[in-house]
Amino acid sequence: MTLEIYWGSGSPYAWRVLLAAELKRIPYESKLLEFSKGHLRTPEFLALNPRGKVPVIRDGDVTLAESMAILAYLDRKYPDPPLFGRTPEEAGRITLATSELDAYVREPLTAVTRWLFGDKPRTPDIDEALAKVVPEIQRVDARLASATWFVGDAPTAADLVWFPPMRTLVRANARTEPRSRELNLFPFAELYPNIGAWIARVEKLPGYDRTFPPHWR
Amino acid sequence: MTLEIYWGSGSPYAWRVLLAAELKRIPYESKLLEFSKGHLRTPEFLALNPRGKVPVIRDGDVTLAESMAILAYLDRKYPDPPLFGRTPEEAGRITLATSELDAYVREPLTAVTRWLFGDKPRTPDIDEALAKVVPEIQRVDARLASATWFVGDAPTAADLVWFPPMRTLVRANARTEPRSRELNLFPFAELYPNIGAWIARVEKLPGYDRTFPPHWR
Repeated sequence: MTLEIYWGSGSPYAWRVLLAAELKRIPYESKLLEFSKGHLRTPEFLALNPRGKVPVIRDGDVTLAESMAILAYLDRKYPDPPLFGRTPEEAGRITLATSELDAYVREPLTAVTRWLFGDKPRTPDIDEALAKVVPEIQRVDARLASATWFVGDAPTAADLVWFPPMRTLVRANARTEPRSRELNLFPFAELYPNIGAWIARVEKLPGYDRTFPPHWR
Repeated sequence: MTLEIYWGSGSPYAWRVLLAAELKRIPYESKLLEFSKGHLRTPEFLALNPRGKVPVIRDGDVTLAESMAILAYLDRKYPDPPLFGRTPEEAGRITLATSELDAYVREPLTAVTRWLFGDKPRTPDIDEALAKVVPEIQRVDARLASATWFVGDAPTAADLVWFPPMRTLVRANARTEPRSRELNLFPFAELYPNIGAWIARVEKLPGYDRTFPPHWR
């Protein structure tokens, strides 16, 4: 039975899983669900994941939700190329990068991105979120100045996990230029050239096009 | 050179790492830092982790922060017994459990625990946090009704990651009985007997005593 991947257009968590499947060249059946049509609230989908969230995979008898769990599963089942490195130190550094995104970046970055796309006035909350996000982005840009990928000499889970939010921020900046200028985030690829170049490298990975959010086209 | 573990009494993240080292019987040098004495703000410690947080390990040339990164590193370097299972499915289920704690439980549970220990009035925020936490705890209790450990037949990262917050909640309940009663969390071990029995099992693991928060004694 082919691996089934349930995903939604633009979900950063689902995007990680699609990128992993493409990187490992695992054949899969794409199950694209539409948030706006209530596809994540059907009894069939809630039977797969009671939390009603994507991504979910089905692989034979195994049904699994949560992106990091799916990456762990896929990496054990299809070890090559490895998502979590070839040495203990690489495994540690890759997991450090994925943990840092979750612990220090995800929440304030979501606040900034939502503000960019919305029409709410700028509040101290946004400034606070921005004050957290910018140093993290600067740190990533500095790291990518002397490295092709986050850890080691090939893409790993660290790249796959950081790519969706960074690519979403680029999109937000392009589509909301006046607001992005106000936050000193525009033009993103000029302000953060190493992240810009790294994004271009990810976009050239085989199969990348199949993972691109359909509603962004 | 012996593995060095920098930790702080009662930090749930540091506790994970100590439990992992004990489970794997890795010899280590305990570096207990005191939050109240500013030990996490010294230039020496900030050189190890610029974020000024525990846990941090040093192992020869490798310095690493963030608990999940450290667990990934230790599990690769000292594979037996495995923290992340013996099969792809176990790896997936263990990482699912650790992801769920972080994504759905940690934040509301912290709010509830802080309220228990504090003297602030009960606000709708606390009720909201409680409404998120209780079903998650019930789910864990139900899961442990028919299982000795979270996943498979031995303790794994899932147990080590869930143990500190659950044990902290038990402590909070015991020390703040009137408030705990108000939240219908007391007596915790009677309300959630399977979690209570699992906590007792973790407490019997070899070396557990060395990981117990000194300021709780």
